[in-house]
Amino acid sequence: MALVRLIEYAEASPEVRSVYDDIMKTRGVDWVNNFWKALANRPAELRRVWETVKQVMAPGALDPLVKEMVYVAVSATNGCEYCTYSHTAAARKKGMSDAMLMELMAVVGLANETNRLANGLRPPVDRQFDATFRP
Amino acid sequence: MALVRLIEYAEASPEVRSVYDDIMKTRGVDWVNNFWKALANRPAELRRVWETVKQVMAPGALDPLVKEMVYVAVSATNGCEYCTYSHTAAARKKGMSDAMLMELMAVVGLANETNRLANGLRPPVDRQFDATFRP
Amino acid sequence: MALVRLIEYAEASPEVRSVYDDIMKTRGVDWVNNFWKALANRPAELRRVWETVKQVMAPGALDPLVKEMVYVAVSATNGCEYCTYSHTAAARKKGMSDAMLMELMAVVGLANETNRLANGLRPPVDRQFDATFRP
Amino acid sequence: MALVRLIEYAEASPEVRSVYDDIMKTRGVDWVNNFWKALANRPAELRRVWETVKQVMAPGALDPLVKEMVYVAVSATNGCEYCTYSHTAAARKKGMSDAMLMELMAVVGLANETNRLANGLRPPVDRQFDATFRP
Amino acid sequence: MALVRLIEYAEASPEVRSVYDDIMKTRGVDWVNNFWKALANRPAELRRVWETVKQVMAPGALDPLVKEMVYVAVSATNGCEYCTYSHTAAARKKGMSDAMLMELMAVVGLANETNRLANGLRPPVDRQFDATFRP
Amino acid sequence: MALVRLIEYAEASPEVRSVYDDIMKTRGVDWVNNFWKALANRPAELRRVWETVKQVMAPGALDPLVKEMVYVAVSATNGCEYCTYSHTAAARKKGMSDAMLMELMAVVGLANETNRLANGLRPPVDRQFDATFRP
Repeated sequence: MALVRLIEYAEASPEVRSVYDDIMKTRGVDWVNNFWKALANRPAELRRVWETVKQVMAPGALDPLVKEMVYVAVSATNGCEYCTYSHTAAARKKGMSDAMLMELMAVVGLANETNRLANGLRPPVDRQFDATFRP
Repeated sequence: MALVRLIEYAEASPEVRSVYDDIMKTRGVDWVNNFWKALANRPAELRRVWETVKQVMAPGALDPLVKEMVYVAVSATNGCEYCTYSHTAAARKKGMSDAMLMELMAVVGLANETNRLANGLRPPVDRQFDATFRP
Repeated sequence: MALVRLIEYAEASPEVRSVYDDIMKTRGVDWVNNFWKALANRPAELRRVWETVKQVMAPGALDPLVKEMVYVAVSATNGCEYCTYSHTAAARKKGMSDAMLMELMAVVGLANETNRLANGLRPPVDRQFDATFRP
Repeated sequence: MALVRLIEYAEASPEVRSVYDDIMKTRGVDWVNNFWKALANRPAELRRVWETVKQVMAPGALDPLVKEMVYVAVSATNGCEYCTYSHTAAARKKGMSDAMLMELMAVVGLANETNRLANGLRPPVDRQFDATFRP
Repeated sequence: MALVRLIEYAEASPEVRSVYDDIMKTRGVDWVNNFWKALANRPAELRRVWETVKQVMAPGALDPLVKEMVYVAVSATNGCEYCTYSHTAAARKKGMSDAMLMELMAVVGLANETNRLANGLRPPVDRQFDATFRP
Repeated sequence: MALVRLIEYAEASPEVRSVYDDIMKTRGVDWVNNFWKALANRPAELRRVWETVKQVMAPGALDPLVKEMVYVAVSATNGCEYCTYSHTAAARKKGMSDAMLMELMAVVGLANETNRLANGLRPPVDRQFDATFRP
């Protein structure tokens, strides 16, 4: 059960429908996933988040598949169930194989481990990590 | 102040030195960063973590730079100060530009945002995200 | 499946029943939610947590509805499913509308985003944020 | 040390300066805090985040001070040092007293505690928390 | 639904079967839990994680039951559902009673609370906590 | 810089002093650490948190040193700097050696790693982990 009503296309306002249409067109699919149907309870927020996703996830200095895998890495770290399913599906669609997912998770697991070793033992940050350091 | 003594090379046991030597050789540097000097208080753990880092971060289905950027993404998500400095430095060494770092952080920020929108509004996971789903 | 037995009223000790009675009376309801039935496995803990909730969530310098929305914000940030459902229900009972929930989640999402931008880019804390700063 | 260069006003491009000008005008201050100077390394991101902050934090169904306190609550939960300082300062400017901050933190602390009691004992979500439940 | 195929014993490669055999023998059970069946999609990772678990969780300066309870504490703090169930079961098998679990959760809850009180109020670390401090 | 004034003994109200006196007497020390001086801005909260600490951390089904190490584990997982320093110092005072700290951190690191492997790969919880399961 969602904590707000899911707004279906048939009952959506023209403002919401235009975002839904853009989501489906941009992704080349004929359905809208529940995340957006929840956000549609505040059309301005629906539009803002969708425009942000389009802008941030577009090709740029990083490849879209790399970005999608970073999204999966963050979602697994935070334990977000919905996001892990939706972005793993998106990454697979963009070409992520099982082997790539397994390696991605190995890195995510290791980073979470050493993050806590550093947090618990508290070594000082080495001056060599300062971008302006000259030996 | 670290919470354990940092074991310097000069005072390290042969077991610890052999790991330090391998770290410096593998990375092509002449110093060992404080993280490892803290772990050296338990040589078996020092060796295990270092061997894991070498295995997990090696080239495979994913590119080493991509892996390093995933590491940065996880460290920023968890707020680990030491790891953010050390792995950002490592990613830069492997070729990450300022433009790539800024895009990486934009994805990390966005993922952390939508993770909470999903956690707070609780839309059900769409059946289409099931890898075995056939429409 | 809970990880401990849920203690129902009918089988509860007088000590547990007196807390259950106070929960129902304070909230004006005729049932006790599962969270408390789990805590009842340690009656002293049940009483302590309930007394704390009563003290901390009471009207004071902050309005009870504001406090309940802060509770929802923290629960969504942490990804606690049970707490998100129970405190969203509590906030609605105290007057939170759909519009308020959507705005609350927009703030929660944004804060989680910029927290990571700051954690990843590590700008130094400006001296102007020091409460004792005088320009 | 920040992980990217902080872009000062004197050296900023016209695009960045126009955002800086809007930040200072909107807030009625004559300086720009370091968070924005770090984001300015990617002007499009600087503009996007600033526009989002203006939109999300504006008065609406929730009061701006309430929104700012929710921001503080999330930042303390995530342990973001920079954000805790900057948003506590912002909340004080909007009227948060010491008494309000102390109460806010009491709620944040309690929510973080009970989130883990629920995560650890795993009571099932009560059907009464379903918004559509009718007894 | 898992995000990768679960590799059952009957279809597993000899390399995977040898790890499964060692898991069952070490634990004195005749089944392998789903966590390992997911990891088996990358046999080298399956072996590495299992060897690490055996090494880290073995008796040493800390008792295995204490280690298992620490595992439960971390899993509840992170909100990992699978891990909370699996490690609570493991801790019970090693002797954790209901009373011990309830006390463990009380500590976990309290630590999560005071972590945020410290993160939100930001008292400076007392010099007396420096291991090298001499009054 | 703390975000609230630190209340020193000399300037404290009788109510605050009585808690400070109890902290020093209970711990056998002649100073009060900054955490409590921050909480003292709300004397009722100071008293409540201190009484909770005394109750929860007292000997019971679990040993006080075990409880203190669980506190360290949670603090390192959350990345709380103040709490990691203060509770590591407390655990050392109760008998935690360097070897025990290193083993504790190894468990904390491993749990954080496998928590994310489970969160990312999403194996279903095995029915055998249900406490009421009978094969």
